[in-house]
Amino acid sequence: VQKYKLILSYDGTNYGGWQVQPNATSIQTLVQNALEIALRTTVALTGAGRTDAGVHAIGQVAHFTTIDMVDCYRLQASLNGLLPLDIRVYSIQPVSIDFHSRYSAISKTYHYRFHLNKVLDPFKRLYTTHIPYKIDLPLLKEASQYFIGTHDFTSFANEAHKGSASKDAIRTLKRLDIVEEKDEVRLEFEADGFLYKMVRNITGTLLEIATHKILIEDIPEIFSAKDRKKAGRTAPPQGLFLVRVHYP
Amino acid sequence: VQKYKLILSYDGTNYGGWQVQPNATSIQTLVQNALEIALRTTVALTGAGRTDAGVHAIGQVAHFTTIDMVDCYRLQASLNGLLPLDIRVYSIQPVSIDFHSRYSAISKTYHYRFHLNKVLDPFKRLYTTHIPYKIDLPLLKEASQYFIGTHDFTSFANEAHKGSASKDAIRTLKRLDIVEEKDEVRLEFEADGFLYKMVRNITGTLLEIATHKILIEDIPEIFSAKDRKKAGRTAPPQGLFLVRVHYP
Repeated sequence: VQKYKLILSYDGTNYGGWQVQPNATSIQTLVQNALEIALRTTVALTGAGRTDAGVHAIGQVAHFTTIDMVDCYRLQASLNGLLPLDIRVYSIQPVSIDFHSRYSAISKTYHYRFHLNKVLDPFKRLYTTHIPYKIDLPLLKEASQYFIGTHDFTSFANEAHKGSASKDAIRTLKRLDIVEEKDEVRLEFEADGFLYKMVRNITGTLLEIATHKILIEDIPEIFSAKDRKKAGRTAPPQGLFLVRVHYP
Repeated sequence: VQKYKLILSYDGTNYGGWQVQPNATSIQTLVQNALEIALRTTVALTGAGRTDAGVHAIGQVAHFTTIDMVDCYRLQASLNGLLPLDIRVYSIQPVSIDFHSRYSAISKTYHYRFHLNKVLDPFKRLYTTHIPYKIDLPLLKEASQYFIGTHDFTSFANEAHKGSASKDAIRTLKRLDIVEEKDEVRLEFEADGFLYKMVRNITGTLLEIATHKILIEDIPEIFSAKDRKKAGRTAPPQGLFLVRVHYP
């Protein structure tokens, strides 16, 4: 038995997200089906992060197990031949049998991209959230500091699924950098784990602070309320990228 | 009577090109229809460059004439409200009545983008031509010098339309720069005018030189043959951008 690690990139525009969903094509299903065709056997593919519909990935990681060894380079070529061009396999490598794409990860990096310009750049419409109005960027930067560190992020998490137990919501945000580049502002998040829609909820809250709809002084209160309704709105999916999954 | 100049940007992926075509949505038609709705009158819109299906524009220029003066800022907002997000109006300004988006132009700049990487970056699939193999970049640069200056570009022009007279094919290529940036190589063309598919035919020829299918020594012969069949293949549309139209 041999385990393999895949690194994938995809444009999430045309998909219902990473995970198998009713009524929408999932990226996991497409990659798993391609693997099964290439390997002529049933395969179970497990991804590190469940990206939502419209969310993109530059460095999604997934793993699968086979009975026989596979030629990684040939398999990569086969998968990229079978998959649509908006999903690409960057690498496949053998890993130890105790590797798990999700549970072995020590942290993940997500980027959220804002496009700040009066008129939308049409080439950014699917890969950023367009902000045609003025925002208070120094205030956004100041507010971002409140999120760094270990917190109970309940107020910034959506209910994942009906029936899923509300487990421990304490996460450590190691890094939240605000990077300005031409007509874009990028929020770079690195945490040991992310709750459901946590990046988009923090981003939406920061945006409401930067437009003076939420007061920066109220952030501690929002945290302590442990109530999703106290925080800002969920930022749209198309600005979000799963950039990297970090392993020891 | 007042004339207006529009600067437009569009992602050409979903369109049959700038100009009105049978069986495909043209960008000109969409912008003209939006103008007619916004101004409540019939309008004729004339563009500077007829970009083909799948070709993009960052700085397409067009003009139209109205009897009454219009509020440019309001009209821009109306058009961007009416148009799909992959077509954006960057500016509208009044111009002198003798301005013509095509005939007043002294030159145009087109960029052609190659994406050089073994595996395709899925976010570049619609905006570059992917080259997964090695190319001889110094040779491509050397060959590009043969195209600069005033030449008869007949060998690099497709027949525009059946019945269109083969007019003067002498054009002056003022600039052909090869710019390397990360995993991309960009060919920047500036000329006083371009024949039909000229940028894509020169690009395709340079690519065949860079892969040793056409010899650099044969370029003068290809020019003097005045025969499209002697040059290289037409490079695909999605790497091409109309970047700027220059006026005196």
